[in-house]
Amino acid sequence: MDLDFSKLDGLVAAVIQDHKSGRVLMVGFMNEEAFRRTVDSGFATFYSRSRNKLWVKGETSGHRLVVKEISTDCDQDAVLLKVEPQGPGVCHEGYESCFFRRLENGTWTESEPRTYDPSAVYGA
Amino acid sequence: MDLDFSKLDGLVAAVIQDHKSGRVLMVGFMNEEAFRRTVDSGFATFYSRSRNKLWVKGETSGHRLVVKEISTDCDQDAVLLKVEPQGPGVCHEGYESCFFRRLENGTWTESEPRTYDPSAVYGA
Repeated sequence: MDLDFSKLDGLVAAVIQDHKSGRVLMVGFMNEEAFRRTVDSGFATFYSRSRNKLWVKGETSGHRLVVKEISTDCDQDAVLLKVEPQGPGVCHEGYESCFFRRLENGTWTESEPRTYDPSAVYGA
Repeated sequence: MDLDFSKLDGLVAAVIQDHKSGRVLMVGFMNEEAFRRTVDSGFATFYSRSRNKLWVKGETSGHRLVVKEISTDCDQDAVLLKVEPQGPGVCHEGYESCFFRRLENGTWTESEPRTYDPSAVYGA
């Protein structure tokens, strides 16, 4: 399961895709331990660069990501996870996908409604 | 069009997705100029960390990526490009997608045939 963690200071980019709809839900980063825990547990686990620690996606919200399939790219410095999301959205701002802003005429524009109220999940 | 280039030393991760099939084709990185050129030209343009320069995907192979839609995530430190690929594959190793290896029983396994002969495109 060798991956090349050298290009991003010990991390690989991890693209999270809904296994049914094909929608890209988020991009996170994994160090070697996060990747191993993802494989062993079956739940997507990331390394937080800001908090400098591992986090199981959904550990607060309950919106975990059940891993269905894992691929890597030609350089083995990125992974693609097809997942089944538990809960109404992966984005902490209340959207199904973190990619809820589309570029329209040079401006980032919210392109869809929220699927849940983040203050009810994460507190105000 | 503000993006947060600070978290990855001047870069954002760019996920490339086929706009018709929804398949994730590759992950690259863009600095601010690469992103601006992508928007202005309509062709996906990346920053090569190894070669330390901009590159238009397909400049050698002709397999350019025509941008159909651009989204950014909640933190605005990653972008998602839906593209129409020109040519039989985006991977320089001859595959439709760079994500041609799947994890099966702990081993990265080629999960699909090549769609073109890379030596005919890039030289031997």
